[in-house]
Amino acid sequence: MTDPNLFLIGDPPTENPLISGLLGMLRYARWTTLQAVENLTVEQLDHRQDSNANSIGALLLHIAAVEALYQADTFDEREWNKAEEARWRVALELGPTAPQSIRKHPVSYYRDLLAEVRARTELELTRRDDAWLSVAMLFPSFRATRYWMWFHVCEDEISHRGQIRWLVKRLPDLA
Amino acid sequence: MTDPNLFLIGDPPTENPLISGLLGMLRYARWTTLQAVENLTVEQLDHRQDSNANSIGALLLHIAAVEALYQADTFDEREWNKAEEARWRVALELGPTAPQSIRKHPVSYYRDLLAEVRARTELELTRRDDAWLSVAMLFPSFRATRYWMWFHVCEDEISHRGQIRWLVKRLPDLA
Repeated sequence: MTDPNLFLIGDPPTENPLISGLLGMLRYARWTTLQAVENLTVEQLDHRQDSNANSIGALLLHIAAVEALYQADTFDEREWNKAEEARWRVALELGPTAPQSIRKHPVSYYRDLLAEVRARTELELTRRDDAWLSVAMLFPSFRATRYWMWFHVCEDEISHRGQIRWLVKRLPDLA
Repeated sequence: MTDPNLFLIGDPPTENPLISGLLGMLRYARWTTLQAVENLTVEQLDHRQDSNANSIGALLLHIAAVEALYQADTFDEREWNKAEEARWRVALELGPTAPQSIRKHPVSYYRDLLAEVRARTELELTRRDDAWLSVAMLFPSFRATRYWMWFHVCEDEISHRGQIRWLVKRLPDLA
């Protein structure tokens, strides 16, 4: 059943409406991403529509990797350490070679990974306030606010979810 | 040249940070949409990747139509009148038949149309406040805030922009 709170971004008001609103957007976007893939098989998640296309599985991993990258940028204020690089770099860099190395996972694998990363985002954002979100910082060569950065995480997920919806409609019969 | 304010959502703070933030998101999303299509020819805008695919031009019209629909829903609190139905319905309903009827336009046509609709959104949102944005209302059969509705307009554009980027990379040589 759909959580009715997904459509109530901003209601009830909170002490930090920008943070709450952003969390509402991230949650809504994630719900739509998971809806788009919930019934896919391993073969469907690994399928590539053409030789340049990312598999849906690769797009899901990329969504988790982007969120992990911005966690380091904004919560830790550092670049990825070696362990994070090793875990996420391939998933972050979409392209013709990346999807090859991340296959054979059921949808629950992606769902769990996305949930694991998201749990930290929820925790850390809830600890912070709207002033923190609105501060502009150098990132890396231009000025951006953390508000923009976290909107951008949401935006990147939605953009790939749009592609996932397109790809799901065109999955061949892989049974 | 890129407007540096695009990355400064929330800075400087305003009296209505939710409205300002949402406008920042809408502007950023629009900038990326226009960037994705800026060099396309009429033939490229009308091209359909397969028999079920929407042309990029149809997706751009759909983006304008969705924004016009939510203007009526939230600013006018009514459904589309006959003139609006006649103008937008075909563009709103994406699908295999819709793109056929809306062809032969250069990218400036879509840019102007998007700008015309957006001008009203900017004007009307700037006149309103965060309390207005956060009120939940029945829409049409579930409760949603106007904050969610306008995020959804932004989200729908980003989703289709994701598809547009995918399609642009796969345009055949139409010269």
